[in-house]
Amino acid sequence: MPKKVSVVEKIYNANDQLALENRAKLDEAGVLTINLMASPGAGKTSLIERTLEALRDRFKIAVIDGDIASSIDADRAAAAGATAVQINTGGSCHLDANMLRNALSQLDLKEFDLLIVENVGNLICPAGFQIGAHKNILIASTPEGDDKPYKYPTMYQNVDVLLINKIDLLSLLSFDMDYFQKGVKILSPNLVTFPVSCQTGEGFDAWLNWLITAIKEA
Amino acid sequence: MPKKVSVVEKIYNANDQLALENRAKLDEAGVLTINLMASPGAGKTSLIERTLEALRDRFKIAVIDGDIASSIDADRAAAAGATAVQINTGGSCHLDANMLRNALSQLDLKEFDLLIVENVGNLICPAGFQIGAHKNILIASTPEGDDKPYKYPTMYQNVDVLLINKIDLLSLLSFDMDYFQKGVKILSPNLVTFPVSCQTGEGFDAWLNWLITAIKEA
Repeated sequence: MPKKVSVVEKIYNANDQLALENRAKLDEAGVLTINLMASPGAGKTSLIERTLEALRDRFKIAVIDGDIASSIDADRAAAAGATAVQINTGGSCHLDANMLRNALSQLDLKEFDLLIVENVGNLICPAGFQIGAHKNILIASTPEGDDKPYKYPTMYQNVDVLLINKIDLLSLLSFDMDYFQKGVKILSPNLVTFPVSCQTGEGFDAWLNWLITAIKEA
Repeated sequence: MPKKVSVVEKIYNANDQLALENRAKLDEAGVLTINLMASPGAGKTSLIERTLEALRDRFKIAVIDGDIASSIDADRAAAAGATAVQINTGGSCHLDANMLRNALSQLDLKEFDLLIVENVGNLICPAGFQIGAHKNILIASTPEGDDKPYKYPTMYQNVDVLLINKIDLLSLLSFDMDYFQKGVKILSPNLVTFPVSCQTGEGFDAWLNWLITAIKEA
C-alpha cells in the first residue's frame, strides 16, 4: 500500500543557507562565534583589544575583521595577540555569509575557543544579513546620543547582547540613560545589556563573565 | 551640401539624471542646498539646530530629514524654527535623488534661502548617491576616532566641506588630530575644514561665515 510522505522544508535565501552552513561548521569545531556590530567608531576594535588582553592567556582566540577598506582593525587585533583575518568588502556596507565562509576557510577552526567577527561599521546594513554566528552583539556608544534605538530599530531588534560603551564620558554628555533603555526595552525586552568603558575597563567583569560562560557552553 | 552634426552626450544613470533635475530646480529657485552626511550620532541634527538658531532671523530655512524610521530629527528641526520634511527611507541606508525629488515637491522652494538635507546616518552608502545638492558636507566626530578617513575613504573623497565636531571632548580622547588631518589631505587635498563643537558653539563663527557667503552666492 503506497504511503504518503510529506516533506516540509523551510526555503532559505542563498545568504541564509550559507549562514546555516557556517553555523554547522562552527558548531562542529566547537568555537563560540560572536558577530560584533556598531556604528563607525563606537568601539568595536577597542572592545576586541581589551577582551583579548583579558582572555588571551586562557583561550585561543581568532578575529575576522570586516571593513570597506584598509587592514587597520586586523592589524590592531593581531597586535593584541589574536590570529586575525581581514575581509575587505569592496564597498559593501555589511558582511554576508559568503564573505564569512571565505574567511573561515583561512582558519583551522578546531584550534580556537572563540571567534570574534567584527562587522563593517554601520548601524543599518548588517542587521539584514545573518552570517551564522552564535551571538549577535551590538555596541552602542554614549556620544552617539540616547535616541539611537528609536532611529535604528531593526538593529536593536535583532541582537542578543547590547554593550553600552564610553560610559566614562557620560558626565559630559546630555545622554538620558532611562530614555535610551526605554527604547531598547520596547524593541527587545530581554536583551542582555552591559554598560562598559573600553577606555577605563569599567563594567568589563560582567561582560567577560558572560563571554566566558558562553565559550564554555559552545 | 549635407553637414555632419555630432551629438556627444554623457549618459547618466537614473539617479544621476534625477539629481541633475533636482539641481536645476534648486538653481532656478535660488536656494542653496547642502547635503549633510555623517555616522549615526556624529551631530548632524545638533549642527542643524545651532545653525538654525544663528541664522533663522536672517534667512528662510527648510530642512529635509532622511531616516530609516521615526520623525525625531524633523521634529527637532521644526522645534528649532525650520520648515521640516521627514523622509523615511523604509530601511534604505541612504537618500537618493528620487526621494529628494518627492520631498522637494512638498516645499515652495522660492520661499527659501537655504535648504539643509540631513542624510541617513551612515558613513558608507550616502557617498554613492548624488542627490543634486550644491554642497556635500561631512561631519566627523572626535569620539569616533582618528582613523575614519583611512577606513571610509570614499566618503572623505566626495565632499566639499568637512566639519570636525565634538572638539570639546578632545582632551578626554586619544584622538590624534595630525594623523586624522593627514588622512583627510591624502584623500581630498583642498577640503574646507571647520573644527566645531555643537555643544559649546566653539568654531561656529567660521562655519557660519562660510555658509552665509554660500547662501549669498546661490
